Amino acid sequence: MNSDDRAGRPIRIDGLQFANWSGRVFRQMRDGGVDAVHATIAYHGNFRDAVRAIESWNERFRVYADLILHARNGEDVRRAKRSARTAILFGLQNPSPIEDDLGLVEILHSLGVRFMQLTYNNQSLLGSGYGETEDTGITRMGREVIREMNRVGMVIDMSHSSERSTLEAISLSRRPIAITHANPACWHSVPRNKSAAVLRALSDSGGMFGFSLYPHHLKDGSDCTLAEFCRMVAETAASFGPDCLGLGSDLCQGQPGSVLRWMRQGRWARDREADPIAEFPRQPEWFQDNRDFDRISRGLIDAGLRESEVAGIMGANWLRFFDESFRPES
Amino acid sequence: MNSDDRAGRPIRIDGLQFANWSGRVFRQMRDGGVDAVHATIAYHGNFRDAVRAIESWNERFRVYADLILHARNGEDVRRAKRSARTAILFGLQNPSPIEDDLGLVEILHSLGVRFMQLTYNNQSLLGSGYGETEDTGITRMGREVIREMNRVGMVIDMSHSSERSTLEAISLSRRPIAITHANPACWHSVPRNKSAAVLRALSDSGGMFGFSLYPHHLKDGSDCTLAEFCRMVAETAASFGPDCLGLGSDLCQGQPGSVLRWMRQGRWARDREADPIAEFPRQPEWFQDNRDFDRISRGLIDAGLRESEVAGIMGANWLRFFDESFRPES
Repeated sequence: MNSDDRAGRPIRIDGLQFANWSGRVFRQMRDGGVDAVHATIAYHGNFRDAVRAIESWNERFRVYADLILHARNGEDVRRAKRSARTAILFGLQNPSPIEDDLGLVEILHSLGVRFMQLTYNNQSLLGSGYGETEDTGITRMGREVIREMNRVGMVIDMSHSSERSTLEAISLSRRPIAITHANPACWHSVPRNKSAAVLRALSDSGGMFGFSLYPHHLKDGSDCTLAEFCRMVAETAASFGPDCLGLGSDLCQGQPGSVLRWMRQGRWARDREADPIAEFPRQPEWFQDNRDFDRISRGLIDAGLRESEVAGIMGANWLRFFDESFRPES
Repeated sequence: MNSDDRAGRPIRIDGLQFANWSGRVFRQMRDGGVDAVHATIAYHGNFRDAVRAIESWNERFRVYADLILHARNGEDVRRAKRSARTAILFGLQNPSPIEDDLGLVEILHSLGVRFMQLTYNNQSLLGSGYGETEDTGITRMGREVIREMNRVGMVIDMSHSSERSTLEAISLSRRPIAITHANPACWHSVPRNKSAAVLRALSDSGGMFGFSLYPHHLKDGSDCTLAEFCRMVAETAASFGPDCLGLGSDLCQGQPGSVLRWMRQGRWARDREADPIAEFPRQPEWFQDNRDFDRISRGLIDAGLRESEVAGIMGANWLRFFDESFRPES
C-alpha cells in the first residue's frame, strides 16, 4: 500500500519501541502506516549519555528526513502523517539521566524528551521499581520531580514501577500519567503487568495505558494468539473504558542479547543477574514488526470493538493525550 | 519613565553583557528600556557546566518572569518589548562547551544558545584567540563547526579571536557572522580591537559589529568621553555603513575581581597570568549601567547621525540580524 493512500486513515501510534534503529526499521514503520512512535533513548546512564543518544537521533533525522521527524507535540505527529513520515517522540525508561539534579527535567524537555519512567526495574532516586522486594513508594526527590514534570509537560511513565510507587505517582501528579507498555495482571500474572487497582486509578485520572506485545507480558508468551490478545483488550475496554487505552508494543526489533543484558543490568551489577545467555524472546507470529499493526486493528474489530473504539486504541487516544500533556502547565 | 511609555519607542538591544545577574540588574534593564540582551553563559568549562548555567537561567526566568524572558528568535524580542520585559539571548564566549563533539552544536542550539565565539583569548579547538603569539587561523574542526553553526542557526562571534581566524571565519561562513563586542583598532589600538580589514570584510558580508563600552576597549579608557565615543561610532558608520553596527556594551555589572580572573585564566593556568590583583576597570561616568543607554542615543544624534541611523545602531540592526540568523539554514 502506498503511504499516500493512508492520508485519510485513522492515526496510528505506538506508545513504546526500542529498535536497533535503521533505515530498514523506519521503512517498515512507513509500510505499516505507523504515524508516531515513542522511542526509548535511555535505559541507564547519566545526563551526558542521554544527550549522546539525542545527538544520534539528530543524525538519524537528517539522514532519514524522508521517513522520520522529531516530534515535540501532537501537532508534529499530524505533520508527520500529512507528509507520510513517522514522528519520533523521545522517552527515558529510567530517571538516571536527570542524575540528582531537578533542573535537568526542564533541560531534557527542551531537548524533546516527553516521557520519563520514575523507575526502571530497580529502586531509583524517585521511587521503587517492580523488581525490588521492598515497595517503598515515591521518595522525597520523586515528589519534587513529579511536580517539575507536571510543570514543564513531561509525562510520568510507571510501566516498570512497583504497585505502591505507581499508585502514589497517579495520586501525586496533577496531570494524567501513563503506563506506556504493560498488560493487565489479571490476564497474565507477572510482576511487570498491572493490577486492577492501578488500571482503575489510571483510567479514573485520565491517564493512558499502552498494551504490550512483548512475549513476557503476554498470556502463553510467544504463542499468545491474536484473538486472545484482542479479547483481552476488549475486556479491558469494557472494564475501564476504551478512551484510556492504546498500544505500547515494546517492540525491540533487531536487538542482540547484549542489549537485553544492558536493559536488565546496566552498569549496576557484575554478575549476569537473571539470564546468563539473555536473548530476546520470539515475537508472536502475528506481530513480528512495524508492518503488522493492520492485523491488530482487524483483530480488535473481530473481538467486538466498535470502529471508533479501535481508532482510539490504535492511535487517536495517544494523540489526544499528547495534545494535553506536553505543554507547560498553565 | 514608566515602561508602558516605551511601547512605541525604537527597539533597544545590547549585543553583550555578563552581569552578576540579579533582580536589581533586571530592573535596571527595564528602567533603561533595554528590550534584549545577549548574555554570556560560559567563558570556560565543558558542556555540563554550560547546561548548569542554563539551569540557573531557567530558574531566573521563573523568579523574574515579570522582568525577563528567554528569547530564541527576533519574535521573542518583540514579545518581550510588547510585555515590557527584557529578552535574554544565550551566548558562549568560548567553544569549550561543545567539547570535541560536533553534535553538541545542535544540542546547545536546542537549549537556546544563539551565539558562540570560536575562540576566547587562547587557541581553541576551532581557531586562534587574539592573545596567542601564533595566529594560525581556523582549524579542521573549526571548519566543521562553522558549517554546523550555519546549518542550525547559531551565530559565529569572533570578538576575542585573532585577525586571521576572524577573516577566515567571515570567508568560510555561508551566513553573516558577528563581532558582538569590540571597537575599531584605528580608534584605540589594542589587540582586542578590530582592524579596518576585519570591519570591511564583516560589513561586506552582511555581518554585525557591536561597539564595546568596556574601558580597555575605549580611547582614554575609563576617561573616554561620550562625545569621543559617539564621534568614533559616527566615523565608523561613515566608513562601513550604519546598517552593520550595534552596541555590545560588554557590561559586567557587579562582578568581583575573581570573575575577571576566571575570564582571563579559567582553569588553564596556575599562576595569575596577567594581573595578580585583577579588578574590573571603572566604567565611564556616562555609562555606568543599563539605565544609561539614553545618553548614548542622544550622543549619537549630537554626533551628527540621522535618527533612523541611531535607531538602527541602538537595536533595529541587531533585531534584523536576529531575524536572519537563528533559523536553521533552508
